[in-house]
Amino acid sequence: MSAIGQTRRRRDGDPKVRGATRYTGDMPMHGLLHARLVLAAEAHARLTGVDAGAALDVPGVVAVLTADDLPLAPGAAGRAGTPLARGEILWSGQPVALVLAETEAAAEDGADLVDVETEPLEAVLDLEAAMADDAPAARLTTIAEGESEAGAHGGAAGVQEADSPASPNVAARQRMAQGDAAAGLDAADVVVSGRFRTSWVHQGYLETQAALAWTEPDGELVVTSSTQGAFSARQSLAGILGLPLDRIRVRPAPIGGAFGGKLMVPEPLAAAAALKLRRPVRLAYGRSEDFAAANPAPGQIIDLEVGATRDGKLTAVRGTIVADRGAMTDMGVETISAMLCAGPYNWQAHDLTAIGVFTNRVGCGAYRAPGAPPAAFALESLLDQLADRLGLDPLELRLANVAEAGDRSLDGQEFKSFGARECLEAVREHPLWQRRGSLPEGEGVGLALGFWPGGLEPAAAICRLDADGKLTIVTAAADMSGIDNAFATIAAETFGVGEDAVRVTTGDTASAPFGGVSGGSKVTYTFGRAVERAAREARERLLNVASAELEIAPEDLEVAGGEVRPVGAPQRAIRISELASRTLSFGSPHEPIEGYGSTAQISRAPGAAAHLSHVRVDPETGGVTVLAHAIAQDVGRALNPALVEGQMHGGTAQGLGWALLEELAYDENGQLRSGSFAEYTLPSAELVPPIDTLIVEVPAPDGPFGAKGVGEPPVVAVPPAVANAIAAASGVRMRELPMTPMRVWEALRGRDLAGVGSA
Amino acid sequence: MSAIGQTRRRRDGDPKVRGATRYTGDMPMHGLLHARLVLAAEAHARLTGVDAGAALDVPGVVAVLTADDLPLAPGAAGRAGTPLARGEILWSGQPVALVLAETEAAAEDGADLVDVETEPLEAVLDLEAAMADDAPAARLTTIAEGESEAGAHGGAAGVQEADSPASPNVAARQRMAQGDAAAGLDAADVVVSGRFRTSWVHQGYLETQAALAWTEPDGELVVTSSTQGAFSARQSLAGILGLPLDRIRVRPAPIGGAFGGKLMVPEPLAAAAALKLRRPVRLAYGRSEDFAAANPAPGQIIDLEVGATRDGKLTAVRGTIVADRGAMTDMGVETISAMLCAGPYNWQAHDLTAIGVFTNRVGCGAYRAPGAPPAAFALESLLDQLADRLGLDPLELRLANVAEAGDRSLDGQEFKSFGARECLEAVREHPLWQRRGSLPEGEGVGLALGFWPGGLEPAAAICRLDADGKLTIVTAAADMSGIDNAFATIAAETFGVGEDAVRVTTGDTASAPFGGVSGGSKVTYTFGRAVERAAREARERLLNVASAELEIAPEDLEVAGGEVRPVGAPQRAIRISELASRTLSFGSPHEPIEGYGSTAQISRAPGAAAHLSHVRVDPETGGVTVLAHAIAQDVGRALNPALVEGQMHGGTAQGLGWALLEELAYDENGQLRSGSFAEYTLPSAELVPPIDTLIVEVPAPDGPFGAKGVGEPPVVAVPPAVANAIAAASGVRMRELPMTPMRVWEALRGRDLAGVGSA
Repeated sequence: MSAIGQTRRRRDGDPKVRGATRYTGDMPMHGLLHARLVLAAEAHARLTGVDAGAALDVPGVVAVLTADDLPLAPGAAGRAGTPLARGEILWSGQPVALVLAETEAAAEDGADLVDVETEPLEAVLDLEAAMADDAPAARLTTIAEGESEAGAHGGAAGVQEADSPASPNVAARQRMAQGDAAAGLDAADVVVSGRFRTSWVHQGYLETQAALAWTEPDGELVVTSSTQGAFSARQSLAGILGLPLDRIRVRPAPIGGAFGGKLMVPEPLAAAAALKLRRPVRLAYGRSEDFAAANPAPGQIIDLEVGATRDGKLTAVRGTIVADRGAMTDMGVETISAMLCAGPYNWQAHDLTAIGVFTNRVGCGAYRAPGAPPAAFALESLLDQLADRLGLDPLELRLANVAEAGDRSLDGQEFKSFGARECLEAVREHPLWQRRGSLPEGEGVGLALGFWPGGLEPAAAICRLDADGKLTIVTAAADMSGIDNAFATIAAETFGVGEDAVRVTTGDTASAPFGGVSGGSKVTYTFGRAVERAAREARERLLNVASAELEIAPEDLEVAGGEVRPVGAPQRAIRISELASRTLSFGSPHEPIEGYGSTAQISRAPGAAAHLSHVRVDPETGGVTVLAHAIAQDVGRALNPALVEGQMHGGTAQGLGWALLEELAYDENGQLRSGSFAEYTLPSAELVPPIDTLIVEVPAPDGPFGAKGVGEPPVVAVPPAVANAIAAASGVRMRELPMTPMRVWEALRGRDLAGVGSA
Repeated sequence: MSAIGQTRRRRDGDPKVRGATRYTGDMPMHGLLHARLVLAAEAHARLTGVDAGAALDVPGVVAVLTADDLPLAPGAAGRAGTPLARGEILWSGQPVALVLAETEAAAEDGADLVDVETEPLEAVLDLEAAMADDAPAARLTTIAEGESEAGAHGGAAGVQEADSPASPNVAARQRMAQGDAAAGLDAADVVVSGRFRTSWVHQGYLETQAALAWTEPDGELVVTSSTQGAFSARQSLAGILGLPLDRIRVRPAPIGGAFGGKLMVPEPLAAAAALKLRRPVRLAYGRSEDFAAANPAPGQIIDLEVGATRDGKLTAVRGTIVADRGAMTDMGVETISAMLCAGPYNWQAHDLTAIGVFTNRVGCGAYRAPGAPPAAFALESLLDQLADRLGLDPLELRLANVAEAGDRSLDGQEFKSFGARECLEAVREHPLWQRRGSLPEGEGVGLALGFWPGGLEPAAAICRLDADGKLTIVTAAADMSGIDNAFATIAAETFGVGEDAVRVTTGDTASAPFGGVSGGSKVTYTFGRAVERAAREARERLLNVASAELEIAPEDLEVAGGEVRPVGAPQRAIRISELASRTLSFGSPHEPIEGYGSTAQISRAPGAAAHLSHVRVDPETGGVTVLAHAIAQDVGRALNPALVEGQMHGGTAQGLGWALLEELAYDENGQLRSGSFAEYTLPSAELVPPIDTLIVEVPAPDGPFGAKGVGEPPVVAVPPAVANAIAAASGVRMRELPMTPMRVWEALRGRDLAGVGSA
């Protein structure tokens, strides 16, 4: 029986549920110093001094480090290179100093006593006002541009610099255009447009940011953290610390949720402090620190207009996509978000300008399909309006324009396989869609389609047969969303054994073969293919060994039932474990039964998901209840349906958070008002409706057994599905996320007042 | 410039000399329990009880474990399977109980208070008497035979069971015979014979036996120790603990000397205690425990006779080789020692019987060329006597009979390349040999030739190019005698970079490719070849990437100066680091520049070494002073002459210990009298003369760049070289090792008395 398509439990599930997984924060370490952040109070200020005297008097406090104390390389820049404020405080919550103590309690007491001396500066807090030519600068100090982490999640090719900006806060401005968008909109029979706003949203991982760093006796720096990318973290640490790559070893630890947010936030400080003090250092963020000082998804403003001809052909999309970068220089989602504003559709022309803007907020980061939910919120809302104006079924409008295999995305890359059409067709038959016309008053069903281009990065894997006949798969892939299961399934199927005979391990940067970041919905697609190749090579070796032992040609042998069997002569079979132990012994004439595999996929495997959301809008309170939800997602091939459905459930739930609940709210002084789970509302089990999952399988030609990335696509189009449902239920069109009761209530009141006025 | 043959410092030298290397005993561990052995006092007794009451009253003592408390699999046997005495005490020094405490001091106090209750049994202490038909049994309890560790060091093929013994203490008896040895001896013109005795000798590693074990939260057992074989230790632990292989991870730690003795001595107890108590446990032997309870080389008695024709052709060798096994069942050196009694010579016939004998001594173990120094002591002494009787130059006698490429060893294996002849020719020209006839009274020069067949075991390696253009080599090879240097040299030469651009790391059993035991003089020969293949594969990938980037065929490219250069167009070169970082990045179309290599050598590469020892014998005291020493060793190819010479120096020094100094001496009750470095004399710098090293290079066809194993051959023939020198200096022929002043003085007195008698 094939291992592919079998539902199996997550391998990491049991220890995680039982609390047995040892996360970075749980690891015992001899001589450990506990680190605690001192966070800035003001949103923008000159940093004139740090008085650590009282803190250093606390028994157990060993050191208080400020920016000047850190052993960073000259020119270290960007977020990782400036982990503590240097001369200027850029947001309320920015780390200013690090207190190191023998106990967590002493570190916390010390941090409370550090006196940060400042002179206030004008804060830049409004994203739109920040772009004005005469806006005050959010950053007085300039720091060289680093590389964008957005590449981890798909990248953006084919962009060009746009006109140079006048505002000191415009960090980047890029324009993507092809064809004559103005002409396309002129030629359209209907044009709709709107301004859409989305809020800062936190990734909401349960394990806060944490890193543990120490130096080995030979001076090697070891960093263990819940990083999504061990080799990437090593590379970045080497750069900012000015160390050779081989003096740093990164050991990826189990991850208690990441969603794009675990890329070099606590590692630089833990590593720098360990190097400075020559003792092991652990920096584990508290929850409020994580809300204030990590790297959430940024707020965005999207102005978008789209046109279509009477017969429902899309003509052009034009717009300006603004994304807050917060105060940090080296990460922005505006470009990818702008690209995604064209959606998975074919256009005659597009003209999209991406603007990244500095404000006095925390630096932004990547969060599951970065920039995609805001883009889909804008586009998919407008498509429903277009359909409405054209008198077309919104699903049919999408079907008439959706990209298919052979079409090209905005950056010119061909879709080699793409299942967006199949997802739309799947939800078209779903009862939620079929019955949408016969719902009670105040209820509605909304549809939206989202996609994610998928990231690419080289990866490699080892497949080793152990003496007991079990396989071990070794990669550098950080623990994410059940990848161990995926690798086990792929190896088992390829080699010809059961999944229980496959062990999956994660190596550190000293010993594992290379592998990229766990992100961008590419682990299964890239690492998985490497695992497949490694297992295939190992299988060939197994057959060669069996061939030599049995004196039968390899092509006349088969692997089944834990044995290698001569075809037609099963009684001569040899157990795999027997072949393994004959091989791994003194004087064996056989090389170890192992394989190495690597990949450098050059064709993306974009994923798509269509959502149906069924909501009820309370006209009195503006409260929106999601009654039911369905998602149809193209996963290429469901290696393990339960895990794919888990991603569909999780992505949908996080999308509902975007849609209705989650917002890092700041007051007029830039102070975070929702810095704990008491104020920052995650979608709980109570708020998430039953989710119907429709698995669509349009195989990716270059994916392992046709599989493609499944992590990011399901979150993308949830907000517009809910917005379209709200519109269907109430007639009001929401243009800002999250769609809280207050905002919906205000919109309903506007509708009613407008109704009164027009009556 | 080629990396091969360049002298370079040992990579592990600096941290070891500075005390910075973190050995197993130095590793910090949270929640650690310190383990201390309780050793038996009697040499043989019934174990009737263990009273731990007083020990458990010591503050900090957590547990006192006896054999019944250990979570061993049913049927666990052999030394590893019976780490504590079970019902019967088999030697003075056998571990009876294990005390676990929060501190080392508490553990020691506790161990002192454990009361071991016994009823005495007759002890078997004399090796010869033990073989008598009516000898008392050294072991009343029978334990199933396990596998022999001797295989790690060369193995012994082509042997047959000899007549079944009558003595209960004869553990094994095997006869190797070919041709008619009796007839060969009859046909000889001269036959000489003798009985040779050697003592128990300890490996003398500076780091005592140590293991650290703990269970991960998911139940995985992790064992870190100075083991010579990570995969082998994992396999053995899985067997005795009844665990699947993948529930055990062995992390090889730096080794502070091993010489064959670090194979599963402390690991079973540390692992069993950690499993039992669910806390980390470290068992680090004290020095006297290591002398009493580890696994030294056994005492032997060799009866040997050899014959030759008048013209100096060897005819036959016949003999009985007895080796003490001590009280343990699963290790004996008698078979390999018997094979080596034929030496590297061609014989018309041989008839050698190997007998392994139980006594009430510590179980024996492997020590650098196990069984070889006693065998060479016997044979090479007799060859000198033969030459003397025949009136031939002893060197010419050896040259006339020495095996060469194409000849076969006793087990029928062909010598594919063999440099014994070249070693003899090298020392023939040496001044020590040339001037041996004109020495002062009381001085003499002795010659001896030794060889070691070399072990074979599959091995594998990974070669990875990192983003900075440096290579990382990953294997499971435990740290021994500068292997990191060897791997770096091989990889640098193969790939085309400098040695400084190569990092070598040792992986654990979870992530490293398979590799055998570091022992048997096979690490460079087997792992080294795997490294070569891995580096070659990585180089091919490098050239392919460069070819794609430059649009030039790979065969028109060369690797030099840290660049890939088009032949004839060096200005178009690309730096390797540039190619690496282009490859290891988002969206790269190139697979990682990595290679996997493995080997299963089937042809041995025997090593040989000829020694000249120049001694002065003090007629008053019997004291022997080694004035000078020369060694010519066939190393195949000296990858790094300094390291090869280090092995030649070290092997010679240890051989001088065998010859003159080292002996685990027991009193008549089986109590160890030389249980510390105060009584057990290692050759110090003062006692070791200048050693002249002559490197002979007869390339091994299957070795990396022709290299062969160099660790064991240099120790083999030191004792007979010294014995032959003593004979040359004084006329007395020593038949027992070590040749202490007392023994030499007694022999001199015997000579003088005989002289008086015959005068």
